[in-house]
Amino acid sequence: MKPPRRVFVVGGAQTPFLGRGHPDFVWKGHPDFGARENPTLDEHIGSAVLGALAAANVPADAIEKGYVGNFLAECFARQGHLGAMVAAVDPGLHGKPFARIEAACASGAAAIAGCIDAMAAGHDVTLAVGAEVESGVPGRDGIDFMARAAHYDRSRAWDPFTFPWLFARRAKAYKEAFGATDLDLGGVVEKAYANASGNPDALMRAISVTAEEAATASERNYLFLEDEALRDHIRLLDCTSFTDGAAALVLATEAGLARLGIAAERCTEILAYGHTVRALGDELHGDPLAFDNVAAAAAIAYRDAGVGPDDVEIAEVHDCFSISELLQYEAIGLAGRGEGAALLRSGATARDGRIPVNPGGGLLGGGHPIGATGVRQVLEIHRQAHGLAAGHQLARPPRVGVASNLGGDDRTAVVTVLRRA
Amino acid sequence: MKPPRRVFVVGGAQTPFLGRGHPDFVWKGHPDFGARENPTLDEHIGSAVLGALAAANVPADAIEKGYVGNFLAECFARQGHLGAMVAAVDPGLHGKPFARIEAACASGAAAIAGCIDAMAAGHDVTLAVGAEVESGVPGRDGIDFMARAAHYDRSRAWDPFTFPWLFARRAKAYKEAFGATDLDLGGVVEKAYANASGNPDALMRAISVTAEEAATASERNYLFLEDEALRDHIRLLDCTSFTDGAAALVLATEAGLARLGIAAERCTEILAYGHTVRALGDELHGDPLAFDNVAAAAAIAYRDAGVGPDDVEIAEVHDCFSISELLQYEAIGLAGRGEGAALLRSGATARDGRIPVNPGGGLLGGGHPIGATGVRQVLEIHRQAHGLAAGHQLARPPRVGVASNLGGDDRTAVVTVLRRA
Repeated sequence: MKPPRRVFVVGGAQTPFLGRGHPDFVWKGHPDFGARENPTLDEHIGSAVLGALAAANVPADAIEKGYVGNFLAECFARQGHLGAMVAAVDPGLHGKPFARIEAACASGAAAIAGCIDAMAAGHDVTLAVGAEVESGVPGRDGIDFMARAAHYDRSRAWDPFTFPWLFARRAKAYKEAFGATDLDLGGVVEKAYANASGNPDALMRAISVTAEEAATASERNYLFLEDEALRDHIRLLDCTSFTDGAAALVLATEAGLARLGIAAERCTEILAYGHTVRALGDELHGDPLAFDNVAAAAAIAYRDAGVGPDDVEIAEVHDCFSISELLQYEAIGLAGRGEGAALLRSGATARDGRIPVNPGGGLLGGGHPIGATGVRQVLEIHRQAHGLAAGHQLARPPRVGVASNLGGDDRTAVVTVLRRA
Repeated sequence: MKPPRRVFVVGGAQTPFLGRGHPDFVWKGHPDFGARENPTLDEHIGSAVLGALAAANVPADAIEKGYVGNFLAECFARQGHLGAMVAAVDPGLHGKPFARIEAACASGAAAIAGCIDAMAAGHDVTLAVGAEVESGVPGRDGIDFMARAAHYDRSRAWDPFTFPWLFARRAKAYKEAFGATDLDLGGVVEKAYANASGNPDALMRAISVTAEEAATASERNYLFLEDEALRDHIRLLDCTSFTDGAAALVLATEAGLARLGIAAERCTEILAYGHTVRALGDELHGDPLAFDNVAAAAAIAYRDAGVGPDDVEIAEVHDCFSISELLQYEAIGLAGRGEGAALLRSGATARDGRIPVNPGGGLLGGGHPIGATGVRQVLEIHRQAHGLAAGHQLARPPRVGVASNLGGDDRTAVVTVLRRA
């Protein structure tokens, strides 16, 4: 989909992504335990929305419509109706049409897509929000909640850890088919945590991991699947962690920019996106060696944007598990089939490589507050493109970027192509 | 919002709305208990989508995009990612961009609004689905889930029955301010159940209630609020019941109709809609005597449609509680402030009245599978307008209709104006 009216990212903000591993996150082992609480869902949404308005220098009452991407607030925070929670952030937002969009882990990108459509319908300034607060419930409950991104009833036959099991299945197949190793997957983790160390908003900014550590089972990096056939193919560090956080973006058309008095040069244009959805419950029927659905979305996005993988100077990909990053490289055309591990080994996707991928830590290093992720990815590309990325700014601000947000096991894919205006 | 490209309802379908009170609904007291199960969420969605495609005479692969409105599947059915569940219904839907929209009890209308925006962006044929399966959990859990349409944490101080409490508060204030009586509210219930008796898809099609019965506390119609100050102002029959069901609509632009070879005369045009959202958590700060937010949405919808309340020949209003119907009359301009009860008493909103309201039973009589309701309302107007409403068809098919879908206690309002094409 090429936006029929041009759409620009004017500015945005994210909250620090919090969870186990982040020095500010309060839990049983933290010195502040009992003395203060972690921020609530309201607080994350409020901070991100007000931060985005401030970063864009846009008054709240200029917002005409918006969507909030969220997957599981009804389970984690006993809260639905998040559109009305966004309307509560500022009096300037009262009365505006906000609603929640849910597409599992691709909820954030789907919210942006909703805003793009709204702008096609005549709105000139919109707000895309993404948020998730996942702490405050026992881990087992959290794992069970996550299974709602697959066909829950069918998934019960697989393993209690639905998504780690699905991606361990892919990791095993990938290693067997293409000669990749656990150390290659460890290399994904090492890069993610290293990149997070420069990002003040990253969950894992204070933690470092080597590829060897990530590739080796240990007390810190344990095996946990019940299925013996797949148990050795995923460790704790291969997985994203429960995270609290929110991100928000102000989007505008050309008419909106003119009305707001904002120069397009400050902005990043959304050239096109592809959004494709495959059948829930069919997770085991596709090719475990590829994200075919992401590839379909990427093909649409590149076609409609009029650019190709060779033009991409930054990619934010959905590394929900270490294997996902390699499959994402291949699905968005950065590497050929089975060549993702070699691309990583070559250093091309490092911060100083030819095509930096997840230079702020991605999901593994930066954290994955689910609904926020797709919004955070686009924010990251906007910030990198304009030299606004704080401690993890790339030396050469990229011009063309791709964000790839995934829901479930290759069920919902949203691939977005952006270009500095 | 006036759709920038004209949008037509081509056809749609709903599943029979099931729950306690419906002869086909299996529960402990039913002779089939243990012998068969009630339909699942997949099955409701599948039936509604295939039924809508059949009714519209549109092949699945003609659908270009769609949204599914749903409030609480993650709680009631342990299921998110419903966009991918829609994609699973038919091979022709595979790969298409579907996502879920959530706006509490207004999720269905918000899904239609999302489709309208998608059509503005260039899609010509879209699918709006709404679904909820609420059975299968204990009633107390269901009540707790519903509180997620308010600000959950703040609502804990009110009453365990969040929404009955909020609407009892409105009922008490309305009776005191305007001299309405419990018998007036009972009249809403009587009309709803009587209208449902002709509707083969209605939850309460086999049950009749008189206004006197509805207005009198009894073993069948008990008081249940804990708050003594409001306890007498709501009874069981004043409330909608937990319901399972789904509804779906095929929508098309003029270009879409041309491509499909469908005459506009078969269709109902969506002239305009208003979508307004007020701050979650502020439920106690507004005027209990009016749905101010619904009125704001209605004003936008009428203005953009170029019609007024006097033109309306059918209204589908969100009678989540008996008091809601009277407040809806006033908010959408069928009656002046405080005059809703008099309008009901006059018979004007009866099936043979000047402006029939909820001629198939609405939410109280027809059932309220939450995400399905907003879609079912528009379907109902389309069917009535074209003489397709089975046993509850109005004698004179209406030309102009209004659907008013509400989320929370006057937090999200979506008012849609339609006209037979």
